[in-house]
Amino acid sequence: MNRGLFITFEGGDGSGKTTQAEILDTWLRERGETTLRSREPGGTEVGEQLREIVLHHRGEISPRAEALLYAADRAQHIDTRIRPALERGEIVLQDRYIDSSLAYQGAGRALGIDEVRSLSVWASSGLWPDLTILLDLDPDRARERLDQARTRFDRLEAEKNAFHARVRTVFLELAEAEPARFLVLDATLSIDELAAQIQARVTEALVGKHE
Amino acid sequence: MNRGLFITFEGGDGSGKTTQAEILDTWLRERGETTLRSREPGGTEVGEQLREIVLHHRGEISPRAEALLYAADRAQHIDTRIRPALERGEIVLQDRYIDSSLAYQGAGRALGIDEVRSLSVWASSGLWPDLTILLDLDPDRARERLDQARTRFDRLEAEKNAFHARVRTVFLELAEAEPARFLVLDATLSIDELAAQIQARVTEALVGKHE
Repeated sequence: MNRGLFITFEGGDGSGKTTQAEILDTWLRERGETTLRSREPGGTEVGEQLREIVLHHRGEISPRAEALLYAADRAQHIDTRIRPALERGEIVLQDRYIDSSLAYQGAGRALGIDEVRSLSVWASSGLWPDLTILLDLDPDRARERLDQARTRFDRLEAEKNAFHARVRTVFLELAEAEPARFLVLDATLSIDELAAQIQARVTEALVGKHE
Repeated sequence: MNRGLFITFEGGDGSGKTTQAEILDTWLRERGETTLRSREPGGTEVGEQLREIVLHHRGEISPRAEALLYAADRAQHIDTRIRPALERGEIVLQDRYIDSSLAYQGAGRALGIDEVRSLSVWASSGLWPDLTILLDLDPDRARERLDQARTRFDRLEAEKNAFHARVRTVFLELAEAEPARFLVLDATLSIDELAAQIQARVTEALVGKHE
């Protein structure tokens, strides 16, 4: 199996994941790498429909149903897009993955983190990222950034700050438990500084890939 | 907890589940019972959207994604509609439930029946029916009935007959493993004869409920 590299970006909304994924994507392509950018929820046609349900449904969605919708999105995404790209040797840059499920559904909601982990592992048939870039940001700062950028919030963004504080804590705990997989960055650094640190870490990973 | 009665109808498409659920519903209401008729997939607003995806999506849906979509539908349905109705003491008549997942996703597809069972049990927080009415019908007979009734088939109905034969076998094995929960009926009997046998069995269950 000619294995590519699976890189995920994690962190709260407003932490700069999209910007950094874009910069890394351009940088990799300039170096002749084939990349695939994707996101969760979404990333497939079925996934985009699920994303619409999860983020914009007006009524109640039960915590179990929400976790299962994310898992269904993940299974479809991994089976039909990500695994085939990795098998072709591509570099996958993905906005959110298992760690987001653990942080948002596991800790933030009523469900246990172990239950959500089992579900995610089943959904992805055990595919873990080679590298996870966590853009860590205080939820108050994230809210300020989002307030400046737009006026409308989706269902999850509108959750209380206490929820986002718990999510941040879980992200940091996950990173501490798996230091080899995670690169934790202070999202208040400049865009250029963050990009440089990410490129340094990805360079190391590429050496391993091409050896 | 003032517990109602949870009755599910299982069997292939064309076996007469809808007709018998309607007759039983009327019969129960005439006896002063409060009923809730529901179906899977579907039965909630979110569920109807999932039903549309599962049954009518034109592209590939991976087996894991399909199983998880059904599980998400189930969780939403059980948490927001069925449990509350049962707690109010109502009689729930449901078209398809866990046994359909086991038969269609577990045996019919690539996934193992035990995996799908664990997923379903998690999604429903372990809610099993009090009574499951299995309308057993040879797939060739079912296809004849469906051909007469309409000209357009959804994605699952269009599967090969061998698939439907496997599904039928699993339904019968499930019924054999849990004789106390299942009432297995020959779906080639007349509508009135089937209704009478169902009413006799439900009468017994009602005695238990009202004791």
